[in-house]
Amino acid sequence: MLIELPRHTEIFGSVKIHELQRVIKLDSGGAENPRACDITWEDIKSILKRLAIVVPVKNENLHLLDGVLRAIPFDCTVIIVSNSDRVPQDVHKMEREVITNIHNLSRQEFLCIHQKDPEVGFAFHDVGYDYLLDKSRLVRDGKSEGMIIGMLLAKSLGKDFIGFVDADNYVPGSVREYVLDYAAGFCMSKTPYTMVRLHWRYKPKVVEDRLYFKKWGRVSATTNRYLNLLLSICTGFETEVVLTGNAGEHALTTDLAGIMKYSTGYSVEPYHFVYLFDEFGQRVKEILYPDACNAGVEIFQIETLNPHLHEEKGQSHINDMLLGSLSTVYHSALCNDEVMSELLDDLVDILQSWETPPPNVVMPPIGGIDAVNFAKLLESHAETFTWLHETTVKSEIEEEYLKGESFQAV
Amino acid sequence: MLIELPRHTEIFGSVKIHELQRVIKLDSGGAENPRACDITWEDIKSILKRLAIVVPVKNENLHLLDGVLRAIPFDCTVIIVSNSDRVPQDVHKMEREVITNIHNLSRQEFLCIHQKDPEVGFAFHDVGYDYLLDKSRLVRDGKSEGMIIGMLLAKSLGKDFIGFVDADNYVPGSVREYVLDYAAGFCMSKTPYTMVRLHWRYKPKVVEDRLYFKKWGRVSATTNRYLNLLLSICTGFETEVVLTGNAGEHALTTDLAGIMKYSTGYSVEPYHFVYLFDEFGQRVKEILYPDACNAGVEIFQIETLNPHLHEEKGQSHINDMLLGSLSTVYHSALCNDEVMSELLDDLVDILQSWETPPPNVVMPPIGGIDAVNFAKLLESHAETFTWLHETTVKSEIEEEYLKGESFQAV
Repeated sequence: MLIELPRHTEIFGSVKIHELQRVIKLDSGGAENPRACDITWEDIKSILKRLAIVVPVKNENLHLLDGVLRAIPFDCTVIIVSNSDRVPQDVHKMEREVITNIHNLSRQEFLCIHQKDPEVGFAFHDVGYDYLLDKSRLVRDGKSEGMIIGMLLAKSLGKDFIGFVDADNYVPGSVREYVLDYAAGFCMSKTPYTMVRLHWRYKPKVVEDRLYFKKWGRVSATTNRYLNLLLSICTGFETEVVLTGNAGEHALTTDLAGIMKYSTGYSVEPYHFVYLFDEFGQRVKEILYPDACNAGVEIFQIETLNPHLHEEKGQSHINDMLLGSLSTVYHSALCNDEVMSELLDDLVDILQSWETPPPNVVMPPIGGIDAVNFAKLLESHAETFTWLHETTVKSEIEEEYLKGESFQAV
Repeated sequence: MLIELPRHTEIFGSVKIHELQRVIKLDSGGAENPRACDITWEDIKSILKRLAIVVPVKNENLHLLDGVLRAIPFDCTVIIVSNSDRVPQDVHKMEREVITNIHNLSRQEFLCIHQKDPEVGFAFHDVGYDYLLDKSRLVRDGKSEGMIIGMLLAKSLGKDFIGFVDADNYVPGSVREYVLDYAAGFCMSKTPYTMVRLHWRYKPKVVEDRLYFKKWGRVSATTNRYLNLLLSICTGFETEVVLTGNAGEHALTTDLAGIMKYSTGYSVEPYHFVYLFDEFGQRVKEILYPDACNAGVEIFQIETLNPHLHEEKGQSHINDMLLGSLSTVYHSALCNDEVMSELLDDLVDILQSWETPPPNVVMPPIGGIDAVNFAKLLESHAETFTWLHETTVKSEIEEEYLKGESFQAV
C-alpha cells in the first residue's frame, strides 16, 4: 500500500496524534518515494494474520452481512457478535447460516456469539467483570458491550490487533480497504499501544434524485471541533489534528484495548480520545500504566480511498449522537468553564437551559480479565458460540470422504 | 481469489461460453475445495504484469478519474485514451495532471493519448488502417475507436492481456476488483484466445429518496435474451448461458483482440458474441483463423463481489443502446426470420413499421497492424502522447537529486 506520510504529529503527554494520511494506492511497487510510505503486501499480510476483525451485528440485511464477510481478508479471523432478534424470527440463526456457508467455501476462521446468550452474562460474572450486565445478568443492549465481547474473544485467540467493521456496508470493496488500512497503520506504528482510525473520503447521501458525495457530517464536524478544543486548551497551542472523533471504523492493538475504558452508546469512539487525553496527556496525575506511558500511545488517522456507503438509519439518532459525543468532552477532567459554556450553546436545541449533558456510562479496562478462561466458559456452555476453523473442518471433510458422502455444510 | 467453478459450459463450434461464476472471496487461503477455484495471489500477480488496463475517458469528473486510476493494481500498465474537450477548457490537460501526479507518487506505468490528436489519425493512415478515420483524417468520436487505440498501444508494449474499465466509477474498490477478476479469468483459461466479461452483482439506482439495488437493466436483459436465442437456434438446444451481452467491463487476450472485428457505438460489446458466433461457431464457412479455431475461444462470465455505482448519464441513450445491441443480432449471418420478427416486435417503440435496424459500422481486425511502429509514430510526433514509466522517472529523480532540488512533477 502507498500512503501519505503524516505531515505533522500533535503530541500531548504520551499521546501522539498523527495528522490525516491519505491512501494513495492500495498496492505499490516498492519504489523509493520521498513523499509517501510504501508498505509491502508481505508486511500487511503479516499483520493480517495477527488481526481479528469484530463485526457487531444487529438485524442487518443478510445480503449486506454476506458481502461484508466475503470482503474481509482471508488471513484475519472474523468475530461476529450479534444482538439480532431471536423471536419471532430467529434472525441470528440465519446469520449463522450465512457465516457457515462462507466458511465452508473459503475455510476462513469465524467465531460467532449472540450478545444475549445467558452464558455470556454468566461468563462475565464468573471472570469478575459485570459492568456490562443488566439486572437479570444478561449483557446489556449496545454496540460498545458487543465490542467488549469481541475484544475478549480476539484476545483469547492470541490476536495482537483488533479491528471493527460495521455489517451494513453496501460496498464490500470498501470493507476490504478498511481492514488493509488498519494493517497499514499498525505497520507504521512504533509502539505496542496503537490505534488506527479511518476517515471516509466521502459518505454519499441520496439528495433528491441523485447521490451527493458528502465529506463531513454535522455530528462529526462538531465532535472533532470540541476534541480539538480540549486538546488546544491543554497544550496551549490551537490544533485541528483530530478528524476522526466519531470513527466507527477503527482498530487497536490488544495491548491498548486492555488499558482503555469504554463509554457506551454513541460516545464510545469520541471517548477514546477523551480517555487517552485524561489518562496519558496529563503529566501530574498518578501513572496507572507505566509501560504505555513510557512506550507512548500512537493514533493514526487514515483517509480511505473508497467512499462509505451504508444503510440509512434515518435522522432520529443524530441528536443522541451529538449529545453522547459532546458529553464525553463536557465530563472530561480536562474540560474548562469556557469549553463547557460553548458546548452548552451548541446543545441548546437538545438540552433545556437548566440541564447539563448526562455523564456517559463508562466501563473499566478489560486487560485484567482472563480471556482464555472467558472463551472456554463460552465454548463449553453457550449454545450460540460457534467457532469455525480450519482444523475442525478438515477432520469433518475427511469423515465425509470416508463415509463416501458429498460434502455437507457444517 | 476464490471463485465458483462454472457449473456448465455451452459449446458452439470453437467457442466455449462458461456459465456465470460468482466471486466468493477476493483472496483465499489455498485450502482444497471441491466447489470453488482457488487462485493464488502469485498467479494473479503474474497476470497483472502482463495486463494493460485501457481507460477510455470523455469529460469524466476528475475526482472520479483520480479514484479509478488510484485503484488499478500497481502491476498493470494503465493506458488512458481521452476524447475530452480541449477548448474552451482544456479538460485533457487537467486529466494529464491527475495522471502525472499519481505516477509521481506511485511510479506506476501510465500511457496517455488524446483520441483527436491529428498524429493519431496520421499514424492509423500510415499503418494502413483508416477504418476509424473521418474525412479530415481524425479518429472518429466513439468509445470503440478509443478502445482500438488503447489495444494497439497495449500490444506495442508487449502486453498479453488487455482489460477495459470506465472512468466514471464512484467506487475505487470496485474498479480494483474488476481488474483482479479479469486476471482470475485468464488464470482459469486454457487457450490464448480468451475473453473475460463481468456481470455486476448489483447496479444501485437512486429511486425516490433511497438506493435500489437493481440486478438487471432492461437493455441488458433484452440483449442477453436475443444473444441466447441466436445461440439456441444455431445449436438446437435452448440456453440462457449469455448474461454479459452489454458488459462494458471486459478483458481479452492480445491474441484474441487481434482477430476480433469491432462494432461501433453501443454495440461494441454485444457484437463480440455475434462476431465469435459468426466466425467460430459455424463449421461450414471458410476458416480464416485456423490457430484460434483449433485452440478454441473461451468466454468467462464473472459476477463481481462489488456493486457497480457510476455517474448517471440519464435515460436518453437507452433506446440507442437497445437498437445498437439488437442490430448486431439482426444482421448476424446466423439470424433467422423468426428471430428477426420477434426482434422487430421488441423495437416497435423505436423503429417505424417499415424500418429495419440499421447495420452497425464494423471495423476489421487489428492483428495485422504493426503496433510497435504505430506507437513509435505517436511517440515521435503526437503532442498528447505521454508515457510515464519507471526508467524515465528514475533518471529524472536522480537529476533532481544531483541538482539538489526537490522532486518536481514530470
